Order: sequence, then structure tokens, then C-alpha cells
Amino acid sequence: MSSILVVGSVAFDSVKTPFGQADEILGGAATYFSVAASYFSPVRVVAVVGSDFGDQYVDVFRKHKIDTEGLARTAGKTFRWKGEYGYDLNEARTLDTQLNVFETFDPVIPESYRSSEYVFLANIDPELQLGVLKQISNPRIVACDTMNFWIKGKIESVKQTIKHVDILIINDAETRMLANESNLIRAANKVLAMGPKTLIVKRGEYGVLMFSGKSIFGAPAFPLEDVFDPTGAGDSFAGGFIGALAQAGDVSERVFRRAIIYGSVMASFNVEQFSLNRLTDLKRDEIDQRFKQFKHLTHFEEY
Amino acid sequence: MSSILVVGSVAFDSVKTPFGQADEILGGAATYFSVAASYFSPVRVVAVVGSDFGDQYVDVFRKHKIDTEGLARTAGKTFRWKGEYGYDLNEARTLDTQLNVFETFDPVIPESYRSSEYVFLANIDPELQLGVLKQISNPRIVACDTMNFWIKGKIESVKQTIKHVDILIINDAETRMLANESNLIRAANKVLAMGPKTLIVKRGEYGVLMFSGKSIFGAPAFPLEDVFDPTGAGDSFAGGFIGALAQAGDVSERVFRRAIIYGSVMASFNVEQFSLNRLTDLKRDEIDQRFKQFKHLTHFEEY
Repeated sequence: MSSILVVGSVAFDSVKTPFGQADEILGGAATYFSVAASYFSPVRVVAVVGSDFGDQYVDVFRKHKIDTEGLARTAGKTFRWKGEYGYDLNEARTLDTQLNVFETFDPVIPESYRSSEYVFLANIDPELQLGVLKQISNPRIVACDTMNFWIKGKIESVKQTIKHVDILIINDAETRMLANESNLIRAANKVLAMGPKTLIVKRGEYGVLMFSGKSIFGAPAFPLEDVFDPTGAGDSFAGGFIGALAQAGDVSERVFRRAIIYGSVMASFNVEQFSLNRLTDLKRDEIDQRFKQFKHLTHFEEY
Repeated sequence: MSSILVVGSVAFDSVKTPFGQADEILGGAATYFSVAASYFSPVRVVAVVGSDFGDQYVDVFRKHKIDTEGLARTAGKTFRWKGEYGYDLNEARTLDTQLNVFETFDPVIPESYRSSEYVFLANIDPELQLGVLKQISNPRIVACDTMNFWIKGKIESVKQTIKHVDILIINDAETRMLANESNLIRAANKVLAMGPKTLIVKRGEYGVLMFSGKSIFGAPAFPLEDVFDPTGAGDSFAGGFIGALAQAGDVSERVFRRAIIYGSVMASFNVEQFSLNRLTDLKRDEIDQRFKQFKHLTHFEEY
């Protein structure tokens, strides 16, 4: 069980979906990632919060034995995001973003974190992502996320960063935008040529495609009757995926494929409730049970 | 190897995609279905064409040993459809529809077809679909397709028809519309409660979900670098699916799941070229080779 380092946002979200709304609930990419990953391997978090980030929120991390030495507290307010979803839950409409203390976030990796073997760079400025990598010694796997905002605004920095990562985890629109190519398979091959050995394309309710070399692995999303709030699904996926990789301690295709399913399992639990309400309440055997359901969902025989 | 009966349209299509265009090429749901199914089991077609339907088009059916006794030729012009696709190849924009001889199509099932064991009712007026069923004696499996036009305009007839079918094959938007429910899984369960034992939901580039009882099977679409023309993909899928069922002569879940993959294989070949150019040119071992690639695409191990 190797240690995982995640660098990204911790936030308070206000979310409205067709099924309800909640104000100022715990969120942020690093939060979803670290709680999801914590079911598989020890996690260390680097993020910044404001003076309004009460102990009850730090306790969420502590409950999952997540190392919070790198959770910096600064004068000012915690990052806030406000968004809503329509009945088509695939895309959020951002209503308001207040960066607050996140605006000047310049991640400093604590000495004790620098030998982390698995590193996840959540969606932040690609220059900061590159700055993190300079502080890490000899990681085994570096994975990263990014978004349309950086691909549009800082394409050269994005390209510079992904040259140095093993696994890029983005959605289908971002893949097409990054490659400037409408066919997803061609786009994926162009992205692989930019550096990452593996590209994971998240497709929301349609599941995931993983591209590595000439191999492609496809997994559907878990079919749910109640998708309550999709916020954090992508980061929960990444947490389950990297967590399962770190727990296996092996980088074979067999292990990568199983990790994709564990990521999909964690994302499916996350969307069942607001905030981390479901993710913080899981038992390991519920996770393994849903993994088996994924096997049933996708299995067919040749003869 | 049981015989398959298909009732539906034979047409001349004019299609424009970002990659090229073609005018007055052979198309129609019954055409795509029957050629795809012919690789697996003998097929009988019931459709109507005009006096402009030359022998070279009938030869396409004959080449695949498709029984054309039910292919009625009437004075007038063959059904014509004109459409175009953008870079997002998921949906066609219809530019023109000329029903011509199809407008008064009232399918008469030849005596020699009436004991067909497998029946596919392609997308036509649900009242005509019901009329076909009254002419068939004791089929083993009846599958049918329909579309938003009939769900909006003739919902009671659609419901009446699907009460009598074993398998309904429609897309995700049609499933949501028929059930009046935005969540696809809930919508699927509502549709199953209307009569069909199995619902197959086509999701274009995202693959297929099959619902039967409490079991769900999900398969991605085959990842293609060149999707040239998606016209006929759904009917090629249905042809491969029903063809594989008829060839197996068995209605177990295991056989249904394999048939879903064969349907996906046939759809993936079809979209590689205009019209039936690719479908009419296949070898059975190419089909089985792509089936194996589907296994590689989706396979993961539990331990």
C-alpha cells in the first residue's frame, strides 16, 4: 500500500439539482479524490482553506485517515462554487465562483510528502501542476486532470505539464479540444502522442474509455435509478482509480482495468447523495459488492 | 438456423456527412437489417419499392440469399430520404422525405413467410406493425423498433403494439419519451412494465444497454477512427442481434448478451462506409475477429 499525494481544491459548494439543493456544503476536487482514494491506500492532501473552514470539515479528512499536514489554513475565505444541473445531469451550469484564498494558492509540498509514490494533480493551473512535480522525488505514477478553461487559455502550459505525467484523466469534450479533432479515437491517439502513456476519457453517464498504446478499454457507468448530484463524480472516479492502483502496487494492464472499475464504483456511490454524504459513509464490502455488479453488467461469453 | 422475417422500408437515401456525400444510394431499415442478419441466418423481407427500383438493387438482396418474395413492386417511385450529419455524428438532420409508394404500404405477409420463428418489425406505423403480427402464426421471438414521431403522434397504438412484442429496440431519447421519465434506468423499467420482456436501448457512439427483468447488460460501441456515415447503424445492430439469436436458436441471457455484441459488430462495420458498401462486402471471419476485439475492449478480471 503506497502513499498517494493529491494537490487540488477544497471548497464550499452550493448546488441545485432537480431533486433538491444544498448551500455551502463541503466539496472541492481534492476532497472528493482523497476520501474516495482513502478506501484503498493512505492519502496525503495539499490544499488551502480559509479561516472559515471549521474543525468539523477537517474531521472529515481525519475520519478517513487522510494526512492533513499539507492542508494550509490562510486568513480569508475558503473557495466557493455555486452551480446547478438540469434534468440532463451531464453538465453543471456555474452560477458563481469565488476563488478567495484559492486565488493565490501556490502549493508547497511538505517534506514528509515528497517521496509519495502516486501523485494526482487535480484540476488547477497547469503551471502550478508543473511546480508540484518539481517538488516530488521519483514518483511511480503521476496522474493529472485539467479543464477547457486551461486548454483554451494556457495550452502551452498544459502541453508542458502533460509531457511529464503518466496518466491524463479528462472528459470527452476536453480530449477533442486538446487534440483539435472531432473523432474521439483519433483525438485520444493525438493526446497520447503529447506524452501521457495512458489517457482516461470520462464520459459521464456513458462511462469511461482508457487508451494506452494500442489497447482500449471501455466500461459503462453503473446504471443508477437515482442520480442525485453529479458534483465530484470525476474526482471520486480518479480517487478510486488511483487508490486501487496504489493498493495493487503494480502497473500491469490487468491492474489498470480493475482500477477503472473501482473508480467507476466510487463515482457511482458519490452521485447518490449531496456532497460527500455517501462517500464518507461506505463500507469496503459495499465497494466490492458493486464491483461484482459491474462484472455482471459487462460480462459476455465468446462461446 | 431459424428463418427471420423483417418488415420495413427499402429506400433511396441522399446523405451528406462531413466526410463526403452520396445521392440516391440504397438504404432503408429493412435493407440494412436484412443484409446484416443474413450473415447469421436466412432472412425474408417484406417491403415495397417503386418501378424505379432496378434489378441491380434486388441483386444486393439476392447476393445475401435474402428471400424477396415479399418485396412488392408498385407503380410509382421508391421511398426517398435526404439527410445530413454534422461532426457530431449522433443525430441526422432530415432535409427531405418523399414517402412515394411507402405512403400506402400495407404489408401482406406471403404464405411461405407466415411460420417465421423470428420477426423484426422495423420502424413503421405501429398500426401496420400490429397488422403484421396478426398474419404471423406462433413466432418464437418478435422484436420491434419505433420512433419519436409515432410515440408523439400515436402513443396508444405504440403501447398496443409493444404489448405483443418480446423485444423493443429503441434509442435513449425514445425510451425517455415513451416512459415520460428523465432517468434512463427508471424509464427502462417503466417501458418493461408496458409489455416487452426485453428492452434494448441504443445510445449511438456510447453503445447499448439491454434490460430484461432485473438484469442489465451494457456494451460500449466499437471505437472507430473513421465513422463515415452512421445511416443504418441501428438497423444493422438489430440485424446482427436478431441474426445471432436465430442462429443460436436459444433464448438464454447468455445468448442474448452474445447477440448484443454481434449487433454492435455489424453496426460498427456499417458506419465505416456509405450505404451498404461495407455490409455487403464482409467475410464471416472479419465478424468473428471484431467480436473478439469487443471481448478485449470490455474484459476485466475480478482478482
